[in-house]
Amino acid sequence: MEGIKNSDRAALVRAITLIESFRPEDSSVKNQLLKLLPKKDKPSLRLGITGAPGVGKSTLIEKLGLRFLNQGLKVAILSIDPSSQVHQGSILGDKSRMLELSRNPNAFVRPSPSGAALGGVGMYTRQAILVCEAYGFEIIIIETVGIGQSEIAVFDLTDLSLLLIQPGAGDELQAIKKGVMEWADLFVITKADGKTEPLAAKSFQELLSLKPSGHESDPETRKFIFKTSAETGSGMGDLTEEIITRWEALRGSKDLESLRGMRNSLYFYKEWPQVLRDKLKSDRAVQAKIAEIGKLISEAGLAPEDGFNLLISFIFARSKGSS
Amino acid sequence: MEGIKNSDRAALVRAITLIESFRPEDSSVKNQLLKLLPKKDKPSLRLGITGAPGVGKSTLIEKLGLRFLNQGLKVAILSIDPSSQVHQGSILGDKSRMLELSRNPNAFVRPSPSGAALGGVGMYTRQAILVCEAYGFEIIIIETVGIGQSEIAVFDLTDLSLLLIQPGAGDELQAIKKGVMEWADLFVITKADGKTEPLAAKSFQELLSLKPSGHESDPETRKFIFKTSAETGSGMGDLTEEIITRWEALRGSKDLESLRGMRNSLYFYKEWPQVLRDKLKSDRAVQAKIAEIGKLISEAGLAPEDGFNLLISFIFARSKGSS
Repeated sequence: MEGIKNSDRAALVRAITLIESFRPEDSSVKNQLLKLLPKKDKPSLRLGITGAPGVGKSTLIEKLGLRFLNQGLKVAILSIDPSSQVHQGSILGDKSRMLELSRNPNAFVRPSPSGAALGGVGMYTRQAILVCEAYGFEIIIIETVGIGQSEIAVFDLTDLSLLLIQPGAGDELQAIKKGVMEWADLFVITKADGKTEPLAAKSFQELLSLKPSGHESDPETRKFIFKTSAETGSGMGDLTEEIITRWEALRGSKDLESLRGMRNSLYFYKEWPQVLRDKLKSDRAVQAKIAEIGKLISEAGLAPEDGFNLLISFIFARSKGSS
Repeated sequence: MEGIKNSDRAALVRAITLIESFRPEDSSVKNQLLKLLPKKDKPSLRLGITGAPGVGKSTLIEKLGLRFLNQGLKVAILSIDPSSQVHQGSILGDKSRMLELSRNPNAFVRPSPSGAALGGVGMYTRQAILVCEAYGFEIIIIETVGIGQSEIAVFDLTDLSLLLIQPGAGDELQAIKKGVMEWADLFVITKADGKTEPLAAKSFQELLSLKPSGHESDPETRKFIFKTSAETGSGMGDLTEEIITRWEALRGSKDLESLRGMRNSLYFYKEWPQVLRDKLKSDRAVQAKIAEIGKLISEAGLAPEDGFNLLISFIFARSKGSS
């Protein structure tokens, strides 16, 4: 805690490692640490950045991060990859990501904790944000892959969210049309350079036509949609400026606390089932019962529906008996 | 039940609608129906087909379905779209899908039930498969979008699974490399025609190089990987033949029952948390507690972590008191 207050990098890494731990014996120290974290007078910006694999997230984040550093801001990047659960290994596993950023003493790049469950990732992210804020980072970028349900849950933890869009990505535009438009704050078309520049221009026009005019919080529709090239830097200055402008407006308006409260409650509504599941999964008696029922299904032809009923009865009977 | 045994289409539709119902008052009739379903001597093929949006699933399934019909087989198609939860409306909403198939008396096309939760979709799928089998369908195609965790869970309900791959899709090949290779049985590159034919050929070669040689269940690596065009029909005959060959081998080997038992248990391991969540969500006292805690978080600054603890204590205390 002292180390974090004094911006000691080794203490920060130790604290984040503690937060990533799923060992029961670490949980009381973890909770103590979280209770003791000092509140900063000036809140940090929690910036969510998401997009499909291959859209150019790392490259854009590196360039954006360097621009923030140039403005004298301290930047932390937390990368979340829930799909690493499915694919048994992170897609983001490349260690050479964001090289320039990760070498800068005012920046901190932390990849997703491996082996964390979805609910765990959300919980971890919230706690890691709090630690990074206490350490003194002013911009905390939360990077996630895709626009699935779990990624959206993680984004309830942010103040401002960016959706990166591949030039010519019809499916993503479809998804935006279907409801993501209300969820992300800024839409950023990547790779507006070289061969993909015409496609980027086309996607830009399509996005403009999707956006209903007269959004309450910004009269200028174009300030929602950015066409950028991390390579040439085109559009990156405007994007950086818009993020900082929005952040200053939000921080100045005193709405920030109620916005964060509202988003925390959304996060709670979405994530409690995962938290409950993780708690049950770490209970040895429940583990044994799950294995027993699984065996009945695979070997004795028990229907999965009957298996669910058996397990749920067991869980509730157990909670009754144990207290 | 009588209607289903006599292949009465109206009875089939009524049974599927009953299964889709989430109303508590329907659940006892539903369970009764499921218990009474007759077992067919000749089991049907449960064929899973998945792929990213835009890969050409509907088109391929329509053509494949027509080929099965031509061989005298009765075909049912159950379309599952878990993402419809997120996007508030199904991506598959186009009613003109699979026109030719849906008009054929020996085929049955059923889109995803709207508003079903993920766990509900899995449960619904299993029950819908059982009804379709009792009715007399010999090939039951389960169509899902994407290769996320929930889609993989649904695929535990199938005997054979196809992953459709967009020509030139680098990300999908990456995912395959990361572990899906062990999960899908057949890999089908779509759109091997016109302008996308060279890309399809390239993806075909890339897939060949990913596949480790000497897979135990098929010495001929090429029988795993198909390059198809739904438009020209190229590769479709080989694919149809391979599916039927594999199905006959599986059905003849008497391994089918143990395979299904094993997959049912995998399905149980993955899906019990969703079933538990759905059960709790339909409990009014739990609903009220969730709303109360949500309000404490948004208005009184309660930390989400503390909210989770409050809710979990309430759930277990309640189950104790109620029995």
